[in-house]
Amino acid sequence: MKPYVFGVDVGGTTVKLGLFTTEGVLLDKWEIPTRIENSGEGILPDIVCSIREKLGEKNIAAEEVEGIGLGVPGPVSTDFTVHKCINLGWGVFNLQEKMNQLLPEIPKIAAGNDANVATLGELWQGGGKGYHSAVMFTLGTGVGGGIVVDDKIVAGTNGGAGEVGHMMVNPEESVPCNCGKYGCLEQYASANGIVRMGKVMLFQSYKPSKLRDMEKFTAKDICDLAREGEEMAMDIVDKFGEYMGRAMSYVSCTVDPDICIIGGGMSRAGKIITDAILKYYRRYAFHVSTGTSIALAELGNDAGIYGCAKMIIT
Amino acid sequence: MKPYVFGVDVGGTTVKLGLFTTEGVLLDKWEIPTRIENSGEGILPDIVCSIREKLGEKNIAAEEVEGIGLGVPGPVSTDFTVHKCINLGWGVFNLQEKMNQLLPEIPKIAAGNDANVATLGELWQGGGKGYHSAVMFTLGTGVGGGIVVDDKIVAGTNGGAGEVGHMMVNPEESVPCNCGKYGCLEQYASANGIVRMGKVMLFQSYKPSKLRDMEKFTAKDICDLAREGEEMAMDIVDKFGEYMGRAMSYVSCTVDPDICIIGGGMSRAGKIITDAILKYYRRYAFHVSTGTSIALAELGNDAGIYGCAKMIIT
Repeated sequence: MKPYVFGVDVGGTTVKLGLFTTEGVLLDKWEIPTRIENSGEGILPDIVCSIREKLGEKNIAAEEVEGIGLGVPGPVSTDFTVHKCINLGWGVFNLQEKMNQLLPEIPKIAAGNDANVATLGELWQGGGKGYHSAVMFTLGTGVGGGIVVDDKIVAGTNGGAGEVGHMMVNPEESVPCNCGKYGCLEQYASANGIVRMGKVMLFQSYKPSKLRDMEKFTAKDICDLAREGEEMAMDIVDKFGEYMGRAMSYVSCTVDPDICIIGGGMSRAGKIITDAILKYYRRYAFHVSTGTSIALAELGNDAGIYGCAKMIIT
Repeated sequence: MKPYVFGVDVGGTTVKLGLFTTEGVLLDKWEIPTRIENSGEGILPDIVCSIREKLGEKNIAAEEVEGIGLGVPGPVSTDFTVHKCINLGWGVFNLQEKMNQLLPEIPKIAAGNDANVATLGELWQGGGKGYHSAVMFTLGTGVGGGIVVDDKIVAGTNGGAGEVGHMMVNPEESVPCNCGKYGCLEQYASANGIVRMGKVMLFQSYKPSKLRDMEKFTAKDICDLAREGEEMAMDIVDKFGEYMGRAMSYVSCTVDPDICIIGGGMSRAGKIITDAILKYYRRYAFHVSTGTSIALAELGNDAGIYGCAKMIIT
């Protein structure tokens, strides 16, 4: 294998780029703006230009580069066709062919959905290092995720694999999710979701809580108060853990991964949320799988570039 | 690739054997008894003896055989170590090494769990022919299953992948499943499960039903009456469909397979149950995956030998 690889995580505002050794050492990382005007037609040429500049700067020949992995915010087929990336203005086209036209000296291209790629990155060099299969729950504004089995991303027929945020975990829900369904994990386990659920639980309870005195409280407020031992906040985190534990058990009855990785902003709450998840996961999981490991994501915004690089190396 | 392959499905009572071409044509199939005495130490020698006899009978040289795939009723690691098969009396050992000692002329061996192997068989030459990823729900006395992604079995870290019968689909259940948990799919979707659920629903309803006049009714009775249009029986099948649809949606949010295959005795009820499943699957699935195909298993007891052969060919 050639000594270098590029990981390119294409976001709606910036493109994150990383230059790695094929052993997994990040040598350099940088960002360029994402130019979404004109249906995002400048995005790939900008990336190629930036890669060429970096090769010159580091005095690396294109022939020394094993390949380029790209992560994009939308579904990607196994032949690397992207199927509309709304945030980039992109329609349907083959990323590999386009990159090969722009940069024929580095023919090996791989591409994947950004959430799936981040999962692969965390498994390779982050919270899941040393393991070979994982589910990641990315708990941010919404709940994203990804599935990796035998070091390979599972993309799914319709790009719907790893959509763990839309598992129906509460058949009794009467408020719709952003997706139009009712009772999705995202409604309880995202940063917005746990706040919404907290408000409902506060209304239904007479327990005292500092949350009642706050005009507006956040997921962090709930987790901080729970860590301090406030009973009402602990109840909310416990309920969050119940829904997360259900979803994790569904993944485990399907692919039984080595490890579950918790990422996104909510993961900063740390052990208090992994403990709550494991408490219920062990209740709901099939007995052979109750020992599944759980870990916090470690690479933050770099998970994407790591995963992009890993797609080339595997 | 060499022209022939053997598929060997080891059950607790009989071993089913199949001789295939590597194109997937079943040339011959036969059975031998499973001798479980003395910790099942005679099982593999019996299989080898039977394969040698068949090679002689068909005038095929061992060198013309690509390999032998084995399905066993227990968990199998990716290195083909079996971890206790209670029904066979087997402890922990490496199936490949053992087979290589007994039959060195055919060195290529693969092994998998019987439910997973049957899923692969149905995907290759049965209800899922033409597709490359599948979930199978085997609705029999219990509910088993398997997951195949990119024509490969997903076994899981603890052999727990495809344990779809133990997904918790009803958080309100107050009766335990055989596994000790509450609300498992198996409690509603197995042949025993739908009867148990039917009895509860009859008690809770005042609708007339021929089921009330039967001393003992079966899953078949429920499905037959539902097909005739009896409202109460249709309610039971509808509830079965709701729980199955939930479980199928959980699989789809995890691996988003091409197709869902329904096997086992219950599958003989046909369209009435696949329609009930799809009705609810479409409600619970994430929008990109609502079009997942559903099909009935077609290979019956031969699914195992087909899947065993396919493990060698892939």
